[in-house]
Amino acid sequence: MISRFFPKEFNFFDLFEKQVDYAVEAAQYFKELVSKGAVDETAIKNIQNIEHQADEAAHAIIDQLNKTFITPFDREDIYALTKELDDVTDMITTIVNRLKVYGITAIDKDLVKFSVVIDESVRGVACAVKGMRSSKNLKKIQESCVEINRLENVGDSMRDAVLARLFETSKDAIYVIKWKEIYQDAETVLDICEDVAHVVESILVKQA
Amino acid sequence: MISRFFPKEFNFFDLFEKQVDYAVEAAQYFKELVSKGAVDETAIKNIQNIEHQADEAAHAIIDQLNKTFITPFDREDIYALTKELDDVTDMITTIVNRLKVYGITAIDKDLVKFSVVIDESVRGVACAVKGMRSSKNLKKIQESCVEINRLENVGDSMRDAVLARLFETSKDAIYVIKWKEIYQDAETVLDICEDVAHVVESILVKQA
Amino acid sequence: MISRFFPKEFNFFDLFEKQVDYAVEAAQYFKELVSKGAVDETAIKNIQNIEHQADEAAHAIIDQLNKTFITPFDREDIYALTKELDDVTDMITTIVNRLKVYGITAIDKDLVKFSVVIDESVRGVACAVKGMRSSKNLKKIQESCVEINRLENVGDSMRDAVLARLFETSKDAIYVIKWKEIYQDAETVLDICEDVAHVVESILVKQA
Repeated sequence: MISRFFPKEFNFFDLFEKQVDYAVEAAQYFKELVSKGAVDETAIKNIQNIEHQADEAAHAIIDQLNKTFITPFDREDIYALTKELDDVTDMITTIVNRLKVYGITAIDKDLVKFSVVIDESVRGVACAVKGMRSSKNLKKIQESCVEINRLENVGDSMRDAVLARLFETSKDAIYVIKWKEIYQDAETVLDICEDVAHVVESILVKQA
Repeated sequence: MISRFFPKEFNFFDLFEKQVDYAVEAAQYFKELVSKGAVDETAIKNIQNIEHQADEAAHAIIDQLNKTFITPFDREDIYALTKELDDVTDMITTIVNRLKVYGITAIDKDLVKFSVVIDESVRGVACAVKGMRSSKNLKKIQESCVEINRLENVGDSMRDAVLARLFETSKDAIYVIKWKEIYQDAETVLDICEDVAHVVESILVKQA
Repeated sequence: MISRFFPKEFNFFDLFEKQVDYAVEAAQYFKELVSKGAVDETAIKNIQNIEHQADEAAHAIIDQLNKTFITPFDREDIYALTKELDDVTDMITTIVNRLKVYGITAIDKDLVKFSVVIDESVRGVACAVKGMRSSKNLKKIQESCVEINRLENVGDSMRDAVLARLFETSKDAIYVIKWKEIYQDAETVLDICEDVAHVVESILVKQA
């Protein structure tokens, strides 16, 4: 095992760090937002602002990829990593937007719990992605990936429990429509984090 | 910059033109259909007929791709372009089909507005895809891509406004189920058009 | 045409056979389950157990792929095949899980019909995937692919008829929410089977 995974002069890692930092920012903002219990116009603007910057970071990576002949790891892995990281921030933004569009004024406390798990998972993603700079981080990356997988399973169980309770107790179909979608979206964020972990694992196996 | 992007003898462009023409036909038919305000068996047959021909055009491209060693641009870009163009026509067909399956007899006038934006966006897609034959069209292609992106943002706002109103005003949950899905699908058509624009931009960057 | 498509020493086919056998097992279990008319904790455990083993088979293929320089067919086709086969088992597991989470105690008999079509389609998928070991099976593979495509069309019509009836007859919006999603998922299994068939056809065309 060499002490670096990839040549030093390459700047894809800077770009990935930037992109994953926006995902962390989005997850953290989402956690604060739902704990406060309301989504207003300012919140929408703030999350859209984060999403917009994340989008530009993603485009910078794709541009760099299209112009670069030799890449630090497989082109399709770079593409997949960027795409999945973009999806993380997008899905969090989608949830915040839905809360507004669906006119939800009281945040269900199970969504607060979900936001905590999402925040943890996205921080795990950041740790894994940033770790890729150096092979010294191999163990740390692997631990992050295990943790992201664990949190995805936690999210599955949470969603099933929440939906089962929703269908059992609510007679208000429109309430069910809204919250069913929001909880499924929340779990999807964790699925996407797991997809990022799979891409990272794939990249490491190829470098081994 | 050379005067052609790609060798003349290649016929992928003929195939892409054919495929994108079906998408244009589907979008135009959809626009006429919803402005008339009803979907009957004939409409279903007509749109399925367009979708079927579009499908054959897509298969012709994949067959050609599988049999061809040297391609005018990256294999994965050809594949992605065909796939996304196919998705445009498929999603329009899905919406028309839903109107029938859900027994919708009165078309909401917001869907008429959506159909106009979809028609514009798909014509932008056609302009971008057809332009790829020659580097003389570079500016025109870029303008089309900008316009497709703009229309996707327009669609996002339209969908959010329509859904917010739907949840605010309707007490009929089954009505909400139907129209929520239809409007989300309508916006998805614009998302897919934006994906096509991204593929085209990627291809052009690599040729520059 | 040679008598084998690919070198004998390669073990990807063993791995694919294992993976597709789990999909067959899941489809068969699903068929038995819905014909009995109830989903309990044991059923959830059983289907999750199948899904878990299928997941491990998929990971084994990706691991092998990442470690192997020369593959019997295009890397992206191996990846796509594994991914789609995984999606088949996942989606069947999702449906069984939904029946539990949504508290459904009486299985609609149209779902029984769907489970029969799904079982047939997945067996077609197994036939196509297992046939890839030898070019002697070419005709049999092609027949399986045609059959999988036919069953997807059957599924489309079934879903449309079932949903049309659901919206026509049910006034219970929560019932509509549950069954609409379950029938759309059931049809999605057949879509994924068709995607597998497309990947197999692609692989064969390239080998011809």
